[in-house]
This record gives sequence, C-alpha cells and structure tokens, in this order.
Amino acid sequence: MNDAQLARALTEILGPRRVLCEPNQLHAYACDGYTAHQALPRAVVFPETTEEVAAVVKLLHDNDIPFLPRGAGTGLSGGAIPLNGEVIISLVRMNKLLSVDFDNLRAVVQPGLVNLTLTKRITGQGFYYAPDPSSQSVCTIGGNLAENAGGSHCLKYGVTTNHIVAAKFVLPDGSVMDLGTPYGDAPGYDLLGLVVGSEGTLGIATEITVRILKKPEGVKTALAMFDRVADASDTVSGIIGAGIIPAAIEMMDQLAMQAVDKSNYHVGYPADIEAVLLIEVDGLAAGVDEVMDRVVEICRRHHVRTVKVAQSEAERALWWSSRKMAFGATGRISPDYIVQDGVIPRTRLTEVLQRIAEISRKSGLRIANVFHAGDGNLHPLICYDSRIPGETEKAIQAGSAILKVCADVGGTITGEHGVGIEKLEEMRFMFSDDDLTAQLAVRSVFNPKDLCNRGKLIPQPSRCAEVRNARHIIEENWQIFGTFPEHARVMGPDEVGAQG
Amino acid sequence: MNDAQLARALTEILGPRRVLCEPNQLHAYACDGYTAHQALPRAVVFPETTEEVAAVVKLLHDNDIPFLPRGAGTGLSGGAIPLNGEVIISLVRMNKLLSVDFDNLRAVVQPGLVNLTLTKRITGQGFYYAPDPSSQSVCTIGGNLAENAGGSHCLKYGVTTNHIVAAKFVLPDGSVMDLGTPYGDAPGYDLLGLVVGSEGTLGIATEITVRILKKPEGVKTALAMFDRVADASDTVSGIIGAGIIPAAIEMMDQLAMQAVDKSNYHVGYPADIEAVLLIEVDGLAAGVDEVMDRVVEICRRHHVRTVKVAQSEAERALWWSSRKMAFGATGRISPDYIVQDGVIPRTRLTEVLQRIAEISRKSGLRIANVFHAGDGNLHPLICYDSRIPGETEKAIQAGSAILKVCADVGGTITGEHGVGIEKLEEMRFMFSDDDLTAQLAVRSVFNPKDLCNRGKLIPQPSRCAEVRNARHIIEENWQIFGTFPEHARVMGPDEVGAQG
Repeated sequence: MNDAQLARALTEILGPRRVLCEPNQLHAYACDGYTAHQALPRAVVFPETTEEVAAVVKLLHDNDIPFLPRGAGTGLSGGAIPLNGEVIISLVRMNKLLSVDFDNLRAVVQPGLVNLTLTKRITGQGFYYAPDPSSQSVCTIGGNLAENAGGSHCLKYGVTTNHIVAAKFVLPDGSVMDLGTPYGDAPGYDLLGLVVGSEGTLGIATEITVRILKKPEGVKTALAMFDRVADASDTVSGIIGAGIIPAAIEMMDQLAMQAVDKSNYHVGYPADIEAVLLIEVDGLAAGVDEVMDRVVEICRRHHVRTVKVAQSEAERALWWSSRKMAFGATGRISPDYIVQDGVIPRTRLTEVLQRIAEISRKSGLRIANVFHAGDGNLHPLICYDSRIPGETEKAIQAGSAILKVCADVGGTITGEHGVGIEKLEEMRFMFSDDDLTAQLAVRSVFNPKDLCNRGKLIPQPSRCAEVRNARHIIEENWQIFGTFPEHARVMGPDEVGAQG
Repeated sequence: MNDAQLARALTEILGPRRVLCEPNQLHAYACDGYTAHQALPRAVVFPETTEEVAAVVKLLHDNDIPFLPRGAGTGLSGGAIPLNGEVIISLVRMNKLLSVDFDNLRAVVQPGLVNLTLTKRITGQGFYYAPDPSSQSVCTIGGNLAENAGGSHCLKYGVTTNHIVAAKFVLPDGSVMDLGTPYGDAPGYDLLGLVVGSEGTLGIATEITVRILKKPEGVKTALAMFDRVADASDTVSGIIGAGIIPAAIEMMDQLAMQAVDKSNYHVGYPADIEAVLLIEVDGLAAGVDEVMDRVVEICRRHHVRTVKVAQSEAERALWWSSRKMAFGATGRISPDYIVQDGVIPRTRLTEVLQRIAEISRKSGLRIANVFHAGDGNLHPLICYDSRIPGETEKAIQAGSAILKVCADVGGTITGEHGVGIEKLEEMRFMFSDDDLTAQLAVRSVFNPKDLCNRGKLIPQPSRCAEVRNARHIIEENWQIFGTFPEHARVMGPDEVGAQG
C-alpha cells in the first residue's frame, strides 16, 4: 500500500479532516517529551470512537503497516516516537467523560481525557481522581494507563494500576476486548494489569473505567528544612516507622532549591540548608491536626532547622508549585538537563545520594535531586551544556550509572516515566536474557506481527551487537564512576562471546 | 516412565521420606476444600528448596507427566484436585520466614508459611501481614498468591495482589525466574501480577516478598442490628459516601444469625432483626473515636435498632468469631451447604439480595447470606440435603444462578475463592470465546505443554459439546429461576449451531 493509497483508505474511515499526511503537518509528531530522538510518522489520524480506532488498526494490521497510540505526547522516555515511520493514532479527540457512578466510586472515560480535567469535572460533587503526575494539567488518562503513571501522592494512594479497574481495548489486529471488571476483581489471568504500563505495545485502550475518591476532609502541609540530608532521610524513615502514611513526602536538595529560588516560585530557602521536605497528611478532619503534630515532632527529633505548617491555601499552593516546577526551574541554572527516574528502598536514601554525589564529582556535572522521598522514587536532574563537545554523552552515561546504583540496591530503573526508547539498555540491569525472552513472548500473544509500537519497552535479548553495545556503555561507566557490585546481572564478556 | 521408574527418579532428587507413592498414602490428597470431586494423584512430593522444586518440575516436564502445586489444601474451588492423576508438589515443608526488613516494610517467605504465622512472627515488633482470609490460621501464603486471596479487611487494605511485590518462580519447564522487584514497580510487563491469582496454572512460587504493615494504633468495632436489610445496605453506602473507609464492614442476614446463635459463638441476636453489620475502623489513635462516632451516627440515620461499640477486646473477639465461624455454623441448620462467592457493586446490594431470596423461593432451598458488604463480596450459603434425590443438583444450579445475577449487575463470579474446577462454566458468564482464547494464549506462553494444573481456571472455548453443556445448565436455570437480562454474554443456540 503506497502513501496515496493509505491516505485514501484512512480518509474513507475518518473523513479528510481527521487524517494528516503532509510532511509539514507531521513535524509536530516527530517526538514526545523525550527530545533526544526524532522521527517523522507516516501519517497521524484522529479517531473519535472505539469503532474508528478498531477500523484504523484493522486496516493497518491487514496491510502490515506499523502504528502507535499517542496521548498528549508528554511522555519522558520516547514511547510515542515513531521509530519505524509509524502511523500515529492520536487519541486527543476521544476526550469525553462518559459516565460517573459516584455511589460506587467509578468513572468511565475516553483515553484522551486530560487527567486534571476528570478531577475538575467531579470536584463539585466532592470527588477526585488520585494519580497526579506533574504533567497532570495536560497529560491524558490513556497515556497514564500506558505508562502506569505515578505522582506526588502515590505514597498513600498508589500508582495508576491501582486506580484502573476495567478497559475496552483494541488489540493490534483490530479486534476489541473487555479487560477487567468495573466492580470486584476479574477472575482468570489479570490481562488488565498486564496492559497497564505496557507503553502502548499491546494495543489501545479506548474506554477506561477508573476509581474515583472522595476528597479528603482535612489536609495539612508542612515544610521542613534540614542542615543535613541524612537528617531529612532519617525523618522520612521515622515518619513511616511511626505508622503514619502521609499523602506525600517530597524532598529537594540544595541545588534544586537554588534553581527553584531563581524561578518565579520564590519560597526563600536558606542557602546553607542541605535538604527540604514537603510533607502532606490528609484524611478525615478528626485526627489530621494530631497527625501533623506528630510529624512535626519527628522532624524535631531529627534536628530539623525550621519546620512550618502552611497557614493558608495560598502558602500551601506556593510550596507545591515550587516542588512541581522544580524540573523546569533547572533551566535557570543550566542550559540543558536530563530528568532521571529511579526507585530505591527508602532506607538506602542517604547512601544512594552519596553515590549520586560521587557520580556528579567524577563526571564533572552538577546533579540536583528532587524526589518522592516517601516511596524512594528519585528524580536526579543532571545538568550539562550540549554546546560543549562530549558533555551530552557524559550526562547520558551519568544517568545510566545512577540507574545502575538504583538496580543494585534492589530498586528499579524507572518509577513513573517508563522505559520507552530511553532505557532499553538499562532494562538489562534488571532482567536476564531469559527474562526478556519471556516478556517478548507475552507481547507476541497480543502483538504477533509486532506492528504496535515496535521496538519500545523490551530490548531484544541475545543479539550480540546490542549486548556488546550495552557492555560498552557499562564498561565506560565503570571507568568513569568506579566499580559496581558483583551481583550485576549484565552478561560478562565470556557469556557474550559464547553467544556470538 | 512407569510408576516404579517415576518413584525412583523422584526419590533420587528428594530421598525416600519426601516421596509418597502408595495408594493408602495418596487418599488424603484426592481433594481440597472443594469436596464435590475427588481424584487420586500419581504421587505426592515434599521439596524444601527452590532447587528441589525446579529439579522435580524439570523431571516431570521432560517426561510429559502432569503436576500441580498444593499449599494447605484449603481452597474452596478445587484448584488442587489432581484431575489428570497429577504428581502433587506439596509446599508445606517450605514454611520458613526467610527475612524481614522492618524499615522498608518487607518480608521474604517460603510459599508454605501459614498466613497467620507470618503475623505471629512479627507482631512482637508491632507489624502484621494484612490479607486475612477466614482460613488464615491454616492456609499458606503460596496458596494465597495462587488464589489472590481476600479477607475481611480487604475493603481498606486490598487483596493479596496488593501485598506481593516479588517472587522467585519455577516455570513449568523447571527454569527459575525472578518476578517483580522488592522495592518500586518493576518495568516491563507485570508478569508478577499475571501470576498472582493464576491458580497454580503458570508455575510455582518458591520465594515470596510481601509487604508488611505497622499494626494500627487504634481499633474500634461496632455491632449494628437492623430491622430491615435495606437499611443495613444503605448504611454501608452511607459510610463509604461520607468518605470513611472502615477496615471492614461485614453483614449477616437473619438465617446466618440463627445459625451462628445455635453454635458456640452465642452473641444473642434478636430473632426478628433482618441484618447485622460488624463495622471496624482502625488507624492512628488520634481520630479513631471520632470516626466511630460518625459511623454510629450514620447507622442511626438509617434506622438502626441497636448499635454497640465493643467495650473490651473479649467482646470484639466474640463478635468477630461469630462472623468468621458463620460458614461452619451453617452445619447447625442444614445437613449440607454450598458456600458461594460473588461480587456486586455495593449499591446493588438490596436488589441482589431480593434476587437471591427469589432464587431461594423458586428452588425451595434456604439461602443464608454472610458477606464482606463494604466491597460487595457476597457469600450466599445454600442449604440442602444431599440425601434427598436431586437436591444437590438444585443447590449447584441455585449457586450458578446467583453468580449469573452478580455478573449481570457488573460484578464477578468470584471475589476470593477462585475458579478452580467449580466455576469453569460460570466463566462464560463473564468471558466470550475470544476472551477465553486470549487467556489460554497467555497460559501457553508459560505452560506450553499444559502440564501444570491442567484443566483449571479457564474453560476451553469453542468446543461445541462443552458450550452446549453450559447452555443446558443456563437454560435449566432460566426455567427454574426466571429470565435473565438480555445482555448476557453466553452464546445463543444459533451461535452454537454455527460453530458446531
């Protein structure tokens, strides 16, 4: 099927106004929030119903044309980049809130509905949708499903997979399946759980049933400043150890605070404090004050310099803005930066931050740390200048080295940003060739022709060239950043040789 | 491989004392908690390590001998019954608590560790394991993983899948995989989530990392008696609607109360009340009293006759015992009974209880109702007398009709007891032939030779004989219990004909 035939066939399904084929129209779809790689799609289409998605997918499937779904394009790992000249199926016109069942705490949405819009539409009745990625004012619930998105309040409320109970799902051959069940847990294998976080490689959700929650009656937010990072870390462990599950515990280090204080969200952090914690507790009005009193007491026990509880909604909003805009604020202190995303056990925080400082020192790059401390989800911001030859590569390698540390202490290489194309090689820090083979076998059940978002999420196992390449990157990191623990699961040179 | 060869080969791996082959030793393994079907295994073995499980599985796989894993054998849906003369791999000797990380709230256990034993081992430090099926004093965590077990406190704390974060897993060919990650969410497809609730059909978990929780500081328990079931149901919705998430909301109806009051757990329920609610709230000490005050107020608003808050641990324990022993107490009012297990949206409770009453009337069988009202998980207890010809069949059909009602209102055919062999036909109430085919395709990735717990969980699609059989059962139900809504997803006679 040539381009003209394809355009005609797509137009037959969707009409001329919902099919883009001209190169000048396609440029906006060459990348997503991960800008390190760009590639033009073959076309972009805008279906409005499940039937239209299914018809488009069937056409592409029957003609062996690769395709991928796209939400708002805010993904940070390149999951929506058309590496193989895919037809992009944009879901932005499928943005309806289809129904709400307040009594049973469920809402049914189309995938293109913006995350925060759902909350805005039900806030009048006293409800909200809990997962709150920093991009929530623009990102879509379909994209959140694909990435298993997190957010500041995951500590108490869990990530996206804990909030999606059912979905209508177009398989890569154009057939439609119902996954999960709106009430109760579906029997049989948890295919819905498999699809959440599958980064668009198993098909396209076209109708999503989510849990909604009653808004908490009471919210209290504290800002606690520490002379030493170790005290801030110990405070986090102390709070959790006391049996308190705050709605959020966010941490920023000195460099991140400097960046934020240079931006429009001027909180006025003293220049000499090493770490700040933003701690929020919520729940029924009864008890919230007492819980916050205990949080404050735990901060004091760990040598906090100052701790304040927000006295107004404006004060609370300023503190949150300074946290949520921290990524962007890094632009004030560095021409370029990479936002990394890894997870570690909460108790290894101090030690891992020291390792990151070491990587910073050895690479000569500044690294700011902004993160969801309560659930150990780090976001190191690696500052670099792409105009200096070799510095971009050094920044990428420093990021990879940080993820290796996360994997080595029992954590993971991504908390909420996904693997996409960005972290394909780092998947080998966590998975053996056998593991990857099993993952690809599961993919092939859904996506046997590998037409749907090809090349994302799972790297190919046992390809010598790729493995050597990964080995090469890791060995460079070793040279730059020192040795890593013995139990690293990456193949050794002998094993590579044996497979060559 | 004949029986003698098999015995020799198994003995080579495990020694003579951990291999049972004599018929008189095998009888105890002919069924589990589902006693309607019995079948002798070919042998029973007792490995003690992952390596031993892997070696046994590899032997059986290489010789095409079917096998299945077994925990304590308390399953209620027949998942551990050796339908095909399987070799049973009993995990009861793998009952160690391997390690505990109190600071990060994780424990690593072997699959044969008894659920309550884990809590007992960590209670001294102030921690517990949340999922609490009624059988928790005997059932194992490996069995809980296989069945995705629930319990009374799921309402607030979630079912087993929310508490398992990683597992070492022996695949049906004897290879060993690590699933999930102890800290953070593993990237890639959620194979751990797929394995939890797979009823032993995908392989055998040999090491399980679970979340543990800090014991709540405060617990308050109320017993509320209602003249009318509808008021009790409205109270449940009223509590949830107020934004309160109790640890548990349990309901019993009149017949269940009669049974319990005839047992050793004499609470003294008035004979003329229609429903009793057992409501428990827990959390930090600050606030628990106020929350319970609001629960009591909501009960009063919905015409409760009497509501009491437990004044001592002994009183609370009596109330809980009367609830947890309700299944067994049914033996006081009926020679035989079936425990059913279905889920409905909470708000359809009154209506579904009326449908169950109708099924009871039309079948001539008494049905008691004991259930987790907060999450809509019903346990109708169908009373019958197996000595009366035809009554067993009528009880089975009444159970099936109740599950059809649950599926039709958007719920499911099992909340926590699993499908096993008991509910294979009822799976068709929820899944189309295409859905079942997809489920079996996923199974075949893990279990291509179908040696591991063959014939459980997913019925075969598109076999005319079986479909006709299902149709036959359903049509009989229609005759007995009246028509069901039009949107039932079971194949119509024409469709069956078209496939015949």
